[in-house]
Amino acid sequence: MPTTHSAPTPTGPVRLGPAAHAALRPAGAEIGAGFWHTRREVNARVSLPQGPQLLESAGNLHNLRLAAGTAEGDFRGGYPFVDTDVYKWLEAASWQLARQPDAALRPEVDRIVALVAAAQQPDGYLNTWFQLRQGGERYRDLRWGHELYCAGHLLQAAVAHHRATGNTELLDVARRFADHLGQVFGPPGSGKPIDGIDGHPEVETALVELYRETGERDYLDLAGYFVDRHGHGLLGGEAYCQDRVPVREAADVEGHAVRQLYLLAAVTDLATETGEPELRAAAERLWHAMTTTKTHLTGGLGAHHDEEDFGDPYELPTERAYCETCAAIASVQWSWRMALLTGEARYGDLIERTLYNGFLAGVSLDGERWLYVNPLQVRDGHTDPGGDQSARRTRWFRCACCPPNAMRLLASLEHYLSSTDTDGEGLRVHQYVSGRYSSHGIGVRAETDYPWHGTVALTVEETPQDRPWTLSLRIPAWCREFRVRVGTLSYDRTDAPVENGWLRLTRTWAPGDEVVLELALEPRLTAADPRVDAVRGCAAIERGPLVYCLEQADHPGGGLDDIVLDPTRPLAVKHRPDLLGGITGVVAAGYRRRLPDDGRWWPYRDAEPGTGTAGDAVELTAIPYYAWANRQDGSMRVWLPTS
Amino acid sequence: MPTTHSAPTPTGPVRLGPAAHAALRPAGAEIGAGFWHTRREVNARVSLPQGPQLLESAGNLHNLRLAAGTAEGDFRGGYPFVDTDVYKWLEAASWQLARQPDAALRPEVDRIVALVAAAQQPDGYLNTWFQLRQGGERYRDLRWGHELYCAGHLLQAAVAHHRATGNTELLDVARRFADHLGQVFGPPGSGKPIDGIDGHPEVETALVELYRETGERDYLDLAGYFVDRHGHGLLGGEAYCQDRVPVREAADVEGHAVRQLYLLAAVTDLATETGEPELRAAAERLWHAMTTTKTHLTGGLGAHHDEEDFGDPYELPTERAYCETCAAIASVQWSWRMALLTGEARYGDLIERTLYNGFLAGVSLDGERWLYVNPLQVRDGHTDPGGDQSARRTRWFRCACCPPNAMRLLASLEHYLSSTDTDGEGLRVHQYVSGRYSSHGIGVRAETDYPWHGTVALTVEETPQDRPWTLSLRIPAWCREFRVRVGTLSYDRTDAPVENGWLRLTRTWAPGDEVVLELALEPRLTAADPRVDAVRGCAAIERGPLVYCLEQADHPGGGLDDIVLDPTRPLAVKHRPDLLGGITGVVAAGYRRRLPDDGRWWPYRDAEPGTGTAGDAVELTAIPYYAWANRQDGSMRVWLPTS
Repeated sequence: MPTTHSAPTPTGPVRLGPAAHAALRPAGAEIGAGFWHTRREVNARVSLPQGPQLLESAGNLHNLRLAAGTAEGDFRGGYPFVDTDVYKWLEAASWQLARQPDAALRPEVDRIVALVAAAQQPDGYLNTWFQLRQGGERYRDLRWGHELYCAGHLLQAAVAHHRATGNTELLDVARRFADHLGQVFGPPGSGKPIDGIDGHPEVETALVELYRETGERDYLDLAGYFVDRHGHGLLGGEAYCQDRVPVREAADVEGHAVRQLYLLAAVTDLATETGEPELRAAAERLWHAMTTTKTHLTGGLGAHHDEEDFGDPYELPTERAYCETCAAIASVQWSWRMALLTGEARYGDLIERTLYNGFLAGVSLDGERWLYVNPLQVRDGHTDPGGDQSARRTRWFRCACCPPNAMRLLASLEHYLSSTDTDGEGLRVHQYVSGRYSSHGIGVRAETDYPWHGTVALTVEETPQDRPWTLSLRIPAWCREFRVRVGTLSYDRTDAPVENGWLRLTRTWAPGDEVVLELALEPRLTAADPRVDAVRGCAAIERGPLVYCLEQADHPGGGLDDIVLDPTRPLAVKHRPDLLGGITGVVAAGYRRRLPDDGRWWPYRDAEPGTGTAGDAVELTAIPYYAWANRQDGSMRVWLPTS
Repeated sequence: MPTTHSAPTPTGPVRLGPAAHAALRPAGAEIGAGFWHTRREVNARVSLPQGPQLLESAGNLHNLRLAAGTAEGDFRGGYPFVDTDVYKWLEAASWQLARQPDAALRPEVDRIVALVAAAQQPDGYLNTWFQLRQGGERYRDLRWGHELYCAGHLLQAAVAHHRATGNTELLDVARRFADHLGQVFGPPGSGKPIDGIDGHPEVETALVELYRETGERDYLDLAGYFVDRHGHGLLGGEAYCQDRVPVREAADVEGHAVRQLYLLAAVTDLATETGEPELRAAAERLWHAMTTTKTHLTGGLGAHHDEEDFGDPYELPTERAYCETCAAIASVQWSWRMALLTGEARYGDLIERTLYNGFLAGVSLDGERWLYVNPLQVRDGHTDPGGDQSARRTRWFRCACCPPNAMRLLASLEHYLSSTDTDGEGLRVHQYVSGRYSSHGIGVRAETDYPWHGTVALTVEETPQDRPWTLSLRIPAWCREFRVRVGTLSYDRTDAPVENGWLRLTRTWAPGDEVVLELALEPRLTAADPRVDAVRGCAAIERGPLVYCLEQADHPGGGLDDIVLDPTRPLAVKHRPDLLGGITGVVAAGYRRRLPDDGRWWPYRDAEPGTGTAGDAVELTAIPYYAWANRQDGSMRVWLPTS
């Protein structure tokens, strides 16, 4: 448990500019123990240290040396965006260094920053693919080339590196590149040589972050220019490239999910920094459209493997859910920006759901293997071709966007947990961890075994003595019952001062004051809107923020495709410290269908209402979805038929 | 109504070799009126005549001129297999000429045959992509190059052209190419320079056809070599290329659906011509696996857009069903070969289902527009990016494999309808049309308004006078009740002489003898095996061989995603000669869900068994699936929720 008593300046992403039009501002947090502490320790001890060697063996660092002229050979890697793997790792490592010095990590960061700096061209341009493979022909293929996308991740890495270390080496590289972009790109009539955008948004939100770090208004303006040039056919007008419709006019999220989400993060960034109501309205409208009709139960996003597309409203397949790990990360980044802009609790609801489910499933328990796609079902006898889009965990991907992306979110996770209150002071707790939340002379210690147990004990350690402030606790949307004790007072759902999802406790606090929140964690069965065709007649098991699944490993003697859940029987909780790093399982009653193997060659027959299939009773053991695919290969289901 | 009285030698595909180990042999048929006659007239009057101009504007013919040295310019078209569009059109046009002389079509065929001949290289090789784009570097990219696939379609076109016209010009081109292939490809130790296969099977079945046309055994042997070299990792071992497992050992259909099906057509061809039991067993096993677990209700095949893959067992999505039109065609071709090899009626069952549904949906009613993929659902508000894989009909595709493929099946359709009996004589009617079936001195006239009405009147017009023979009529698997009248005798399902789906009528027939078969065409509701997760809680409307769907155009005042079918209410038939070229519709009772728009941002909620949603009664008007997408764009559903 940390014992710092200062109010640290947050050293993470999204440090808002001084004039930002935000309801909330990020506060500090430390994660000292518990669920996320464990995940972050694995990230720090296993995933991050393996990065340099993996980037070496995949050729990414080699390419930088080639570009710098310090090595010989051929360009390696099959994509024009391989540099971003390096940048995302540098960003992740920087956030890690911001948390604690690391004698092994720091020299690796320094070494790779130097490699990047050496590869940069004199005018600021940097992209090894185009420098080495395309004969230096820049900006000829903005639709597929990813040059500005790569620049964006470099900018984000540089901001992180500077915030974490105070060293400007990488920030200088980023500024030179951003200045170069500002000289090249601009609207018609601006005198700039190219009026263009990148097929993969990312530079937009990165430029806002660079503005936040440097105060240089040109970067913010350039971000705004790029955002607003999407949707005008500069790239052929495809939704895939976020070019079908201007974002201010868009009615729905569409196209490649990660591209859409990075663009929307930038839209929210711009709305926050400039106060433009039209951009805010677009972001709110599109977030609502996404969560209402295009979000999987896990928080996963993206219905199609083909073009990594969002798909149609309510098109939420299970076995072919795409739900790219990067899309979950982008969703958290966007929703956090929305939470700060609006102050609304629902953004924290989606962040929580995504973190515990759709995102975390992408990382193996041992931190060494990854999922790029995160399906909600794997069938019995599933034939898996392997590769990037496999339902089996992989050591590294040919397109390795997800692993270092997951590393950077885990390494910076404390920055997505708490904020000031709406008045710029006070404290809002968006996510519950064991550790410490702090802001403007406020320090609150938290102890919890969440999400396994629902009790969160908060102790005021530091407080202004002279004035009241509000402690706001998010009451999760999934929570049916809760109880909160503040000193001698006690509330429950019927009388607690809850406003739009926020439990608001305003008083003049004293050090040692305690607040104990108890969220009821009864396991529950969840159904989908009837328009979600893919899961008609099914229910999913949830408990607290966790979505559960059945895995074949827990159901010997048969697969999962014949399993039926009995929704009339109670669900039981089973704490299993021995299993999968320690989980709480949920046990349900069900049966296994007895289907006659009558040799018929046609699986369709007359519909005869009322004729059920017989079955043998079977105890169903559900595990948290995030922990699936950490034992032997096999089938898996989130949604279970109920008849 | 045709009045020919000879027993024509079938001039179509799959003319078995003299020593073939087949239970049945193709018989002749003419389609004189009715459902398929109309479709074939559109094919002959609209689709086929437009071919040359489309092949000109897409660049295919230009490429042949380039290869022949009679034109200048750049290669056009984005794929290495563009030549096959020409070959398939030539094959289709040849089958059309075999049916009837056509003063406009014949010179077009002659002209294009001459273009193909001129483009051939002196040693027999012919592939414009490799001749023009790859500097003549042959066989360096068997995985993606499609050189043998192109050769295969050339061979099939040549066989058709020769059978139809007696002219050997294209057959000579094909033989030179096949002879060249025989010099280049062979197993290790054969002294041939390359031990290899093509990533896209097709040459295998084509070589068997060339053997059948020429009697040249080497072509059969080369086909056998290619078939058996699949599955040994020559192309990297991917299922996509049919290279993961030898077909003799395969337990399930897998990989790219069309590739798998063309390969299996060849397996059946080889089993038929050589009598090899292992190949026959593989074909039977894989057909059963396919129909039991990987076939859509429409007969459509292929679950994934991504890699055009078969998907897992019981993975049969609706809106993302791939069901390529070419896969339906290949399925008909394969099943017909299986029907001849085994004599079993179920192959005719699948052919019928595929022809009337999964195949025919690919062709617009006006013969001018096409579907490449054939989904079973299009959602309200579907956003369609257009292009080859669009759910909207398209004039021609960038990858234009399907349109000429559909043309060749329609032009040769009469050859998939009837066969001899097992003794090599007699007559088996696999599919019911108005026209005439004929074989070995037997001629039977047929009149029917199938599939709209269930009565088929058969009249013996020509018969050997001295001996009994068997008239076998396929009783469709979907048929619950039927009645057959033979002279003064009458049978129904309880007493008719039906063996494994064949109604067997053996007697010494006399000219003028009549058989009247009445198949009950009550509309019915069909459910899927509970393992087909995509359509749980749904039913589909069928009538006779037709699968029905709802289309938005017939349901003004709302979309289809809120529609619920009431399965307890009767279905009514409504003949609509005015609609969609004349159809029989089915009317069902249902309601439209009333879903509260409560502003909630999350589409999942507590599962509460027994709480239904209210709704407004609505009459549901179902149209045959094949006729969908011939009016305005809109939503469509085959499977309808029932609660």
